[in-house]
Amino acid sequence: MSPEAARHAGGGLQAALGGKPYVLANIGDDADVAFVSRDVTGLSTKHAVLPHTQRFHDALRSAPSLKWVHAHSSGADRPVYGDLIARGVAVTTSSGANAGVVVQTALAGVLMLARCFPQLLAAQRNRSWAPLVGSGLPRDLAGQTAVIVGWGPIGRGMASLLAALGLHVVAVRSTDGAAEPPASETVSYERIGEVLPRADWLVLCCPLTERTRGLIDAAALARLPAGVRLVNVARGEVAEEPPLIDALRRGALAGAYLDVFAHEPLPAESPLWDMPNVIVTPHTAGHSDGNEMRVAAIFLDNLRRWTEGQPLLNRV
Amino acid sequence: MSPEAARHAGGGLQAALGGKPYVLANIGDDADVAFVSRDVTGLSTKHAVLPHTQRFHDALRSAPSLKWVHAHSSGADRPVYGDLIARGVAVTTSSGANAGVVVQTALAGVLMLARCFPQLLAAQRNRSWAPLVGSGLPRDLAGQTAVIVGWGPIGRGMASLLAALGLHVVAVRSTDGAAEPPASETVSYERIGEVLPRADWLVLCCPLTERTRGLIDAAALARLPAGVRLVNVARGEVAEEPPLIDALRRGALAGAYLDVFAHEPLPAESPLWDMPNVIVTPHTAGHSDGNEMRVAAIFLDNLRRWTEGQPLLNRV
Repeated sequence: MSPEAARHAGGGLQAALGGKPYVLANIGDDADVAFVSRDVTGLSTKHAVLPHTQRFHDALRSAPSLKWVHAHSSGADRPVYGDLIARGVAVTTSSGANAGVVVQTALAGVLMLARCFPQLLAAQRNRSWAPLVGSGLPRDLAGQTAVIVGWGPIGRGMASLLAALGLHVVAVRSTDGAAEPPASETVSYERIGEVLPRADWLVLCCPLTERTRGLIDAAALARLPAGVRLVNVARGEVAEEPPLIDALRRGALAGAYLDVFAHEPLPAESPLWDMPNVIVTPHTAGHSDGNEMRVAAIFLDNLRRWTEGQPLLNRV
Repeated sequence: MSPEAARHAGGGLQAALGGKPYVLANIGDDADVAFVSRDVTGLSTKHAVLPHTQRFHDALRSAPSLKWVHAHSSGADRPVYGDLIARGVAVTTSSGANAGVVVQTALAGVLMLARCFPQLLAAQRNRSWAPLVGSGLPRDLAGQTAVIVGWGPIGRGMASLLAALGLHVVAVRSTDGAAEPPASETVSYERIGEVLPRADWLVLCCPLTERTRGLIDAAALARLPAGVRLVNVARGEVAEEPPLIDALRRGALAGAYLDVFAHEPLPAESPLWDMPNVIVTPHTAGHSDGNEMRVAAIFLDNLRRWTEGQPLLNRV
C-alpha cells in the first residue's frame, strides 16, 4: 500500500470504526476481518499463486474467528474465496473501483479492431505506408450492434460510450426485463442465443458464475454472424477457449481483444499470442494508479457498515 | 465511385439541379463545376501526386469556365486548390463527412497511449505476460486535461467523448470567446501558450491555415509539462517535425499518435517509424466505407445551393 493510501486508510479506520478499539493483526494471527489488498495478490494469478500470496490465503483459511474478508478485486472467483464462503465467512469485493478504467481499456480494444490497428501497426513495423482503401476500407462503426454481456458498472459504462459512438446496444444480464437505455433490448444469460445473430461486437464484462461459465461455447459462437469481433474483459472461463481459437482461425470471428484467459498467465505455447487480428493483454485492463484509493474507500465504507451492523455492499 | 453511390449521385443530380439540364464532362473538357471524388485522389498524397490524379488536377487548372470545385476531403490544402482560389474559382470541402470516423481513430490513439498498448503489444509479440504494476502502473485518465486545437466537428466530437471519460477539456480555436461546453476554457490559436502548461494531452484537429502552420513549434513544445502525449489528426505542418522528434527522443513528450506528417508518405528513413511510444498511421484516420455517401450528400446539397444561387457550405 502506498504511504498516501496507508495514511488515508489509517485515519479512515478510526472514522469507520466510530472510535471503537481495533488491533491490526499480523499474517498468521487470528482476526475477525481481513482486507486482501492489491499488494497481497501482486503478480499471482488465479492459477499461479506466488508464495507471499499463498501465505496470506493460508492464514485466512486457518483463522478461526474470521467473519468477513474484503477483496481489492472486482471478482471473487479465486478458490480461497469459495472455501471461505463455504465456511460461512462473508466475502465482499471492490466491484466498481476499477470499472471506469476497464471500460477505457475495452473501448480501446473495440476502436483498435474497428480502425484496423493490428494491421496498421504491422505496417508501421515494416515502415510501410499503406492507407486503408479499396477492399481494406473499414466499415462505419456507427450503426453497428454491440451485444454487451454483463450489466454491472463496466457493461453500463461500455453501453453508454458505444451508444455515443452511434452503436446499437443489446444487454445480456442476469435478469430478463425492460430494456434499460441506452440498451434497446435486454435478455437474460440463458436467452443469449436469441440476440447473438445480430451482433457485430460481442463484449464480455460479466462476473464468472455458474450461469456465465462457458456461456460463449461452440454453439453460441456458431450463432454469431461472420465477421463479428469479440472483447473479453470478464473472465477467461466465460468463453470456451478451444472453440474460440477455432473460430478465429477459420475467420468466423474477424478479431478479438482478450485480457483474460482460461489459464493465466496465458501459456507461451498458446496460438492466441500471434494471431494477426487478436490483441492479447495480461489481465491488466483495470490496472491504474487511482484504484488503491478507490478500493480503500469501498473497504472503509463496508467497515463502517460492519461496525454499525448494516448489510455489506458488494457481498458475493 | 461505388455503383450504389453512383446511382445515388445520378438521381441526386437531377433533384439538386431542380430538373435543369446538365452534361457530365470528360476529363479535359471544359466545365463549370467539378467534383473531386475519393477516386481522383486514390493513393496520391499532397507531396506525391500519382499520374491519374495529376491529369485531373491539370484539367481543373486548364478549364476556362470552371467556377466551383467540390473536394471529397475535409481540407483543401493541396496546391491545386490554392491555384484555383487565386484564379477566382470557388472551392468547397466535405468537412464533417468523415469527422465521426476521425474522432474514433483519434480516441483510439488516446486510449492506446493512456492504457500502454505500445508496450503491451510489444510484450504480446514476445509472448511475455507482463501486467502493468508497480512503476509501470498507468495514471487514471479521468481528471487529466486535454487541450484540443481546432473546434470543428472533430474537435467538438473529441471534446464530448473525452469529457465523458472524465477529462477536463480546453479548446484552442480561431476565435477567443466564452468557453463552449464541454470545454471549460477557450483561447485563440495565438494564445495557445497560456494553456499548454496545463495539458496532459495535446490533440491537434484544426485545419491547416497560415495561423496554424507551425503552431506547435519548439517554443510551444517547451511550454508543455513533462510526460504529455500528442495526437495529430490535423495536418503534419501544424506541428514542426524536427523539434517534435527531438521532444519524443528526450522523453519530454511521453508518446504520440500521428496520422499526418510534414511529408507524405512518411519517408522510410524517418525516425518516427520505430520510436517505442509513437503510433504511426498513413493519413488514414478518416477512411471508412460510409464516407462516399456522406461526401455525395454534401456535394449534392451544395449543388442545389449553387443552382438556386445560395451561398455554398464549407467554402474555403
